[in-house]
Amino acid sequence: MDNRPIGVFDSGVGGLTAYKELEALLPNEDIIYFGDTGRLPYGSKSRETIIDYAQQDIKFLLSHDVKFILAACGTVSSTLPQKVADALPVQYSGVVGPAVQTACALTLCGRIGVIGTNLTIRTNAYGKAIRAIKADAHVFGNACPLFVPLVENGQFSPKDPIVRLVAETYLQPLRREGIDTLILGCTHYPLLYDVINEVLDYQVTLIDPGREAAKSVQSFLTVNGLLSERQQEGRREFYVTDSAEDFCSVAKIFLQQDVSGSVKKISLS
Amino acid sequence: MDNRPIGVFDSGVGGLTAYKELEALLPNEDIIYFGDTGRLPYGSKSRETIIDYAQQDIKFLLSHDVKFILAACGTVSSTLPQKVADALPVQYSGVVGPAVQTACALTLCGRIGVIGTNLTIRTNAYGKAIRAIKADAHVFGNACPLFVPLVENGQFSPKDPIVRLVAETYLQPLRREGIDTLILGCTHYPLLYDVINEVLDYQVTLIDPGREAAKSVQSFLTVNGLLSERQQEGRREFYVTDSAEDFCSVAKIFLQQDVSGSVKKISLS
Repeated sequence: MDNRPIGVFDSGVGGLTAYKELEALLPNEDIIYFGDTGRLPYGSKSRETIIDYAQQDIKFLLSHDVKFILAACGTVSSTLPQKVADALPVQYSGVVGPAVQTACALTLCGRIGVIGTNLTIRTNAYGKAIRAIKADAHVFGNACPLFVPLVENGQFSPKDPIVRLVAETYLQPLRREGIDTLILGCTHYPLLYDVINEVLDYQVTLIDPGREAAKSVQSFLTVNGLLSERQQEGRREFYVTDSAEDFCSVAKIFLQQDVSGSVKKISLS
Repeated sequence: MDNRPIGVFDSGVGGLTAYKELEALLPNEDIIYFGDTGRLPYGSKSRETIIDYAQQDIKFLLSHDVKFILAACGTVSSTLPQKVADALPVQYSGVVGPAVQTACALTLCGRIGVIGTNLTIRTNAYGKAIRAIKADAHVFGNACPLFVPLVENGQFSPKDPIVRLVAETYLQPLRREGIDTLILGCTHYPLLYDVINEVLDYQVTLIDPGREAAKSVQSFLTVNGLLSERQQEGRREFYVTDSAEDFCSVAKIFLQQDVSGSVKKISLS
């Protein structure tokens, strides 16, 4: 038994897709969410800066005595060196490993697509992880730099002509490669689920790394006897580095719930 | 005579459009450019955070003993309170005032459009400044949140179907209002000059705030006897808060020149 909270962090709001799954799977756990909204997005920044920011984010969560740290951010998960993760005093997971496990289990033809931010695709973290499990897999990556600004601007409906055109531009090359499985390698992308499905004619299995990561947190805590013994609903706390009010309005898009009252603006320095 | 450098800052790279004009108008002046690339973009962040970041940026330039500070960022220019600007030990200018002066001088029908980031349009800084000069003007604003990510992703050709569709979506409502003058209220937008002109059928005068601001810096320094007495080309220095290498590749898009060797990564904290 371990009653300490689970810590989740992201560059901003995308990680809320993972938070939501975690909350549904483990309702009695305390969860602390940290979003670095004052410096978002991470996906267009340099590797060096992302590692620096991620370490500051982790330090903040550790100062809240968390029992597990989930990097609910495709960019951080693809960039943070394994040795940094291994040196942490608590269990750490990104979203790459769990997503890749599921993709390898579900693909029939062994042709897997990966979409993500520029940096996520450039690092080829998903491709390397897939081939470590399934050496004969064919992996096709495509960077989708406009997906995050579209989602953060509230544009994700399949009926929006810009959303449709952008999705077709990014996804058609992957479709032509004959993929049967697609990893949505950025935690914003599950909001684009419908348009991605439509563009791919519902012929491709979509993997949501936030959901897979939440399942793997649940499994780790269960197997290691680290679940909370609490019987009532856990505490939820959100910390951000830009306006709490702005975070609440975007959070509503991701969570379909009002979290104002649980959000606090903090400074990392 | 004043041989100290001119300081220019922006959230990242957009201010390079103003820098470029300044360099062309005042080749003998030393210029220090600061781009807060580690925290870009500013346009989607909160008012409070933007004021905080702008003050840190200004403090950095002042530590380099500049004689003039140009906020080459539409968002900062629309947000920084006048009393903060007035309290600075050196002359300060944003890009709003000069652009508005020119727009009011050039409009024939008195119907002026303004495009900018979410925050720039929300503050209505351009509208207020226009009506202070020309009380009977009609001002029509439209936020264009996808323009910055498009430009930073190297997408600004009128032949790019996404660029075209996004530009049409943002500009058609302004066209229908019968504007004859349009302020490009964000320093990234001059790179979209061609597509904006095409969508507006070359019927609307486009005002580039970076260019107008550079002209007003030249005029201020000339009138007040503050030009440098140097006879050869001035020194150029660039400071950024994310990777110097990444800045150089994007700077090439804006400046059509290689600035590597003059760029240094620094930390504001």
